[in-house]
Amino acid sequence: MDVMRGFPPPPEARPALENWDRHPFTSWSFRNMRRLFPTAGIARGPGPVWTLPARKQNLDALTFATADGKRSDVASMLAATDTDGFLVLHRGRIVCERYEGGLDETGLHLAMSVTKSFVGTLFGIFEARGLFDLDEPVTRYVPELAGTAYEGATIRHVLDMQSGVRFNEDYTDPASDAARIDWSFGWKKLPEGEPYLTVYELIRSLADRELPHGDTFRYRSIETETLGWIIERATGTHLATLLSRELWQPMGMEFDADIALDRAGTAMADGGLSASLRDFGRFGQMYLDQGVANGRQIVPAAWVRACRTGCNEKFNDPAFGGRQPKQAYSRQWWIRDLETGTAMARGIHGQLIYVDPPRDMVVVKVSSWPTARNPAWLADTFAMIDAIGAALGGAKNRRD
Amino acid sequence: MDVMRGFPPPPEARPALENWDRHPFTSWSFRNMRRLFPTAGIARGPGPVWTLPARKQNLDALTFATADGKRSDVASMLAATDTDGFLVLHRGRIVCERYEGGLDETGLHLAMSVTKSFVGTLFGIFEARGLFDLDEPVTRYVPELAGTAYEGATIRHVLDMQSGVRFNEDYTDPASDAARIDWSFGWKKLPEGEPYLTVYELIRSLADRELPHGDTFRYRSIETETLGWIIERATGTHLATLLSRELWQPMGMEFDADIALDRAGTAMADGGLSASLRDFGRFGQMYLDQGVANGRQIVPAAWVRACRTGCNEKFNDPAFGGRQPKQAYSRQWWIRDLETGTAMARGIHGQLIYVDPPRDMVVVKVSSWPTARNPAWLADTFAMIDAIGAALGGAKNRRD
Repeated sequence: MDVMRGFPPPPEARPALENWDRHPFTSWSFRNMRRLFPTAGIARGPGPVWTLPARKQNLDALTFATADGKRSDVASMLAATDTDGFLVLHRGRIVCERYEGGLDETGLHLAMSVTKSFVGTLFGIFEARGLFDLDEPVTRYVPELAGTAYEGATIRHVLDMQSGVRFNEDYTDPASDAARIDWSFGWKKLPEGEPYLTVYELIRSLADRELPHGDTFRYRSIETETLGWIIERATGTHLATLLSRELWQPMGMEFDADIALDRAGTAMADGGLSASLRDFGRFGQMYLDQGVANGRQIVPAAWVRACRTGCNEKFNDPAFGGRQPKQAYSRQWWIRDLETGTAMARGIHGQLIYVDPPRDMVVVKVSSWPTARNPAWLADTFAMIDAIGAALGGAKNRRD
Repeated sequence: MDVMRGFPPPPEARPALENWDRHPFTSWSFRNMRRLFPTAGIARGPGPVWTLPARKQNLDALTFATADGKRSDVASMLAATDTDGFLVLHRGRIVCERYEGGLDETGLHLAMSVTKSFVGTLFGIFEARGLFDLDEPVTRYVPELAGTAYEGATIRHVLDMQSGVRFNEDYTDPASDAARIDWSFGWKKLPEGEPYLTVYELIRSLADRELPHGDTFRYRSIETETLGWIIERATGTHLATLLSRELWQPMGMEFDADIALDRAGTAMADGGLSASLRDFGRFGQMYLDQGVANGRQIVPAAWVRACRTGCNEKFNDPAFGGRQPKQAYSRQWWIRDLETGTAMARGIHGQLIYVDPPRDMVVVKVSSWPTARNPAWLADTFAMIDAIGAALGGAKNRRD
């Protein structure tokens, strides 16, 4: 079916509230969030673009072993995993840039939880300016959190998703807490009789703890919404404005971006960002380059190091397979390998910014998987990235 | 009250579906349509901006007689009529550029029915390329209009708002046909039990004629929605893409714009455009300069002439005071003076692009009037513009 083709498109070709994030609508929807929902723009401003040099290579035929024990190649893997955009930066240069299914270089794609790493970055920027002490309680910045499950948690707990707040992140449960976030942002239909809550009202409604604060990592999107509240309150500035002023403008991002809003105009800090493929690449490259982008120190190198350095002991979320060797979660980044500092911004339905210091490589994949999670496709994506990294070679002689 | 101030803004400071276009929310809402509703972006692309030279003058103290027989001055008048942005171009230069109430040069403002003149312009462009014959019936392009009240109407009838289709444009009647357009675009709450219609379904639902096609002018917004359908069907291209490709990009517009959408993703051709003050000015200047903008012939000079030349006999809409000397409506433009070719793009709540050939002047005023129409404020706006025009002088020696 040709989604949204025709004037007007036939009713069955139009995404609706019930199905916009389901097959066959995902690809169109993820590329057109502002056509479906209220959004705030994130302006790049009038400054020059941070140009990414290119030295394209054809990686299509590169092969690797998949999770099911077979072999695949890059082109087949990208096609098989509903890829909308794929970018490889190696030694600071674009070696591969592909668009599928309607995306192009000017188009935006929903980042889902990749958004979290952008929001976390703002904390690194403002911590360096003295606005935050990460060990202060969140209630110092948002007093309304007193008396909620967040009372006693520090900013660091929330950045590392180690608050003890009970929050059911199950994407397959239509009444999970994660679904409640969707209700707040109008991404899912509010059930009959359920009162509407803005996302900040939703945070305030959380009363239960499942663990002591700081005890362990549990992946919960609401933590990033709480971060969004803290940073908006502390700066007196809307998240969309912060993303523009602190990232899009100084980094020389190429295209304006946008972020989804709830009925109070609050940005969806945990997953509402849409940006262009190359701008996701610039963000990854900035993290690869110790916080430097477009010739400027955007976020301190110490922050970037902290995003690659976490506590493996605390990384034991049963929803993500429990404890994994070498892995951690730190400051809104997933650390794949603590030894190499390989870290990722990740989002459901196949969104990924992969920062690989030993390979001097950044990989971005934006996708429209029909399901929120797919561990096999994720494993195969990693296998593909490892094969690409091995083929391209390591970090030496960057500008050779 | 500080509309949308605070994180989160207090409930009473947030525009909602029931009040977003009422006092005190109008100014915020008209500047932030994408934060309230689904929109499509209108991209200016990567090309250079059409720079407007400036020679600023202080017009604040310029006085004129108001409708109630008193005298006012420009500064007082702008403040008294809820002005968000005011721009005067004289001899191709910006002589006055003012922002109030939160708008700035980068901000967008809802154009309301000023949008119609932009959509009409696309017909001028595509007619010149041979895509349309204005005397062909609309059913040639949109066969679905057969059997509706539009059957037998030509494109020209619709461009001049002279089809005989019955359509109640009363903005104060919450169940008028104009309100139905708002229901289609989600701008007003759909009454309980009323089935949702996309705007194209709404057009198809119109079965009655009040007059023979071509008989007389009646201002009806649905005519422009019908034009939108014709141009999308004939070009196979979404209206937002057409506005970008045919106007925003070649004209060197300075900022991306946007347009509101219904649930089928159809753009609100009759009133959904938001653009920056200066870009409204560029559009007016293009019409002043016989269709030339940014060094290019954007729309043929013959089209511009036609927009300034209409039939006064047919201009007799009782809703606009009946027949007026020197006035007409032609191709989605209001002609204020047939002798001088002074013409306007106009929208409710105080939106205006005023093109004054004898004065070599373009005036743009974007406003947030609390009511849709206000004949006294409109008359005073004209008096102010006439005073500014008289003070600035005529068209001679443009580049002196």
